[in-house]
Amino acid sequence: MSVTAPAGFRAAGVTAGLKPSGRPDVALVVNDGPSIAAAAVYTSNRCKANPVLWSERASADGRVRAVVINSGGANCYTGPIGFQLTHATAEQVAAGITSQGAQTGAIDIVVCSTGLIGEHLDSSRLAHGVQAALHALAPDGGGHAAQAIMTTDTVAKQAVHHASGGWSIGGMAKGAGMLAPGLATMLVVLTTDASVDSAICDRALRAATRMTFDRLDTDGCMSTNDTVALLASGASGVRPDPEEFGAALSAVCVDLARQLLGDAEGAEHTIAIEVRHAATEDEAVDVARAVSRSNLFKCAVFGGDPNWGRILAAVGTTRAAFVPAEIDVAMNGVWICRHGQPGEPRSLVDLSDRHVTVTIDLHAGTAGATVWTTDLTTAYVHENSAYST
Amino acid sequence: MSVTAPAGFRAAGVTAGLKPSGRPDVALVVNDGPSIAAAAVYTSNRCKANPVLWSERASADGRVRAVVINSGGANCYTGPIGFQLTHATAEQVAAGITSQGAQTGAIDIVVCSTGLIGEHLDSSRLAHGVQAALHALAPDGGGHAAQAIMTTDTVAKQAVHHASGGWSIGGMAKGAGMLAPGLATMLVVLTTDASVDSAICDRALRAATRMTFDRLDTDGCMSTNDTVALLASGASGVRPDPEEFGAALSAVCVDLARQLLGDAEGAEHTIAIEVRHAATEDEAVDVARAVSRSNLFKCAVFGGDPNWGRILAAVGTTRAAFVPAEIDVAMNGVWICRHGQPGEPRSLVDLSDRHVTVTIDLHAGTAGATVWTTDLTTAYVHENSAYST
Repeated sequence: MSVTAPAGFRAAGVTAGLKPSGRPDVALVVNDGPSIAAAAVYTSNRCKANPVLWSERASADGRVRAVVINSGGANCYTGPIGFQLTHATAEQVAAGITSQGAQTGAIDIVVCSTGLIGEHLDSSRLAHGVQAALHALAPDGGGHAAQAIMTTDTVAKQAVHHASGGWSIGGMAKGAGMLAPGLATMLVVLTTDASVDSAICDRALRAATRMTFDRLDTDGCMSTNDTVALLASGASGVRPDPEEFGAALSAVCVDLARQLLGDAEGAEHTIAIEVRHAATEDEAVDVARAVSRSNLFKCAVFGGDPNWGRILAAVGTTRAAFVPAEIDVAMNGVWICRHGQPGEPRSLVDLSDRHVTVTIDLHAGTAGATVWTTDLTTAYVHENSAYST
Repeated sequence: MSVTAPAGFRAAGVTAGLKPSGRPDVALVVNDGPSIAAAAVYTSNRCKANPVLWSERASADGRVRAVVINSGGANCYTGPIGFQLTHATAEQVAAGITSQGAQTGAIDIVVCSTGLIGEHLDSSRLAHGVQAALHALAPDGGGHAAQAIMTTDTVAKQAVHHASGGWSIGGMAKGAGMLAPGLATMLVVLTTDASVDSAICDRALRAATRMTFDRLDTDGCMSTNDTVALLASGASGVRPDPEEFGAALSAVCVDLARQLLGDAEGAEHTIAIEVRHAATEDEAVDVARAVSRSNLFKCAVFGGDPNWGRILAAVGTTRAAFVPAEIDVAMNGVWICRHGQPGEPRSLVDLSDRHVTVTIDLHAGTAGATVWTTDLTTAYVHENSAYST
């Protein structure tokens, strides 16, 4: 169900033929209201794809009627032709929804694309796919939509939260990265039937993404197409406490982020890098992110080697406050580095489990943060060298 | 010959038993004068190894009598015990040289170490190795020294420049990275019999490293131990024009940098990333470096895939001045992206040769820069996951 779990939404996932594999590649999620409050966040990459350039404008007024997504091509670095195609797609969706009874303008349609950069999409196939999706829209179409947005994903990612107050949040995601940076493009559509205005949506969405998708860093690469959109129908008629709504939205984002991490390209380990006692939260994130981007460290985890020297070498590239001779580092709870010197024996660290926790104590303050990443494997290299994505 | 090609130098490379492989692991280069002018540059990593902490002080006065280097252990994050060992090694070398006739203090000895971080070196083996190196010092010992500093290197790296004026520069290097960052620790010792003071040495060394070792970026990881030292004996009696000397030093550094790049761990392609028409040289370097650190781009080159979308996605993470719709990108001379849109067909790009050139034209100014990197291969992951380095 995912995005169609909350009342007031229909969705569809169809095959337009944009993917050589012949798998579903066009998804559509429509908010039937009564409200079309919304919020969205986009990649911070300066080389933004045409659908992102369009959708930033479309969602700026806090009103979004529908999200249309194609896989099989990013429509990025495709020039004015690509932008016109995005615009035409939004017009087509708006016209289709209008013909179904809800007067809608193109400016209320968010468009997302994912796939290879720098190739033109087949506009005819896309248009036929969008038409088919409009016809296939159904109140239980969430699962089909989640399938149609997959690229290198091996499983569809969906999450639902039912609040005791009678409202719910649903979500679907694709990709294995983060908002900025991202491994492959990350697209997330969240829906709710809670009665929340666009300001509440925006606040809750930014808070949730900051602590979840923004702290996934699988390979340090930033996508041109990342989009996270939240659509609120108000169909439950329930006006939840904004804090409760925010917490529920964060919980759904945590769930989806974990699913993305678990399906990261080629990964054999998921790694939580927890930084403690930093001077500020930003510095804690900087330190954790530097470690998450060390290829040498990520290779060591793949090899089952608790090589804490590579962790400290990465910590040393940051400007965070710390004294090198005071740092402690643990892997899976074993403090192999204490006060910047060898601590407990490396041999006590068991890295056979898929999940690995690295703890870095900077002894420099009271702030902390966790960034999630994955190991760097031969399978990752194979997957990203053998196929154009 | 390398470091012993210029007059006034002796060198040695011996086996102390620090490496499990039983290969040579202690090198010594001694400047017999008449001058001991010198300059050195070190890693910018804040987590510096003990030998770097020592050597920064030792070289600060522009006088260095000798450089002693061990492989088989980085002596980094080994606390006061490790620093005492570095100090003791410098004392031992100074005493040995003094007993050979040249009064020398420990503070004129640069110490370098390379190998695993966070493990104590065997001080007894190291001391025996240093003693053996002192005895083995010879005016033709440069080749042995170059062998003894190797870790994951597959070949020793040496270079010599003979100036027509009767002076020369020699050099040896190990590692496959850059000063900051560096893949494995990069150590470089340069020698000259030109009569140049420490100020000329410092200026020439900084200029040379800025354009060579500082622009190698094989895996974005910064070592804790990187050191480049230049020792000038003045034994030729010739005082070259500082500009000519600087140019010759740069040429030797270019030669060594190319050798480092050609031997980078697991690499199948060397990649020159040339940025043209940037607003400033710093921005050109930033853009080139961002591309050199994109795992996705580097995997694509490994796979022979001219995936320029991954190049632009990396360019978009920088703050350099450019307009996305104006960028041109070529691979091996084929302009596959023009004005931010598909240009010539990707199929025209032949990536079968080991050397690949990426050209990025920002159309934002008159500055430019080139950064050298390598592809990301399954062999790199294997090498850095199967062994602790």
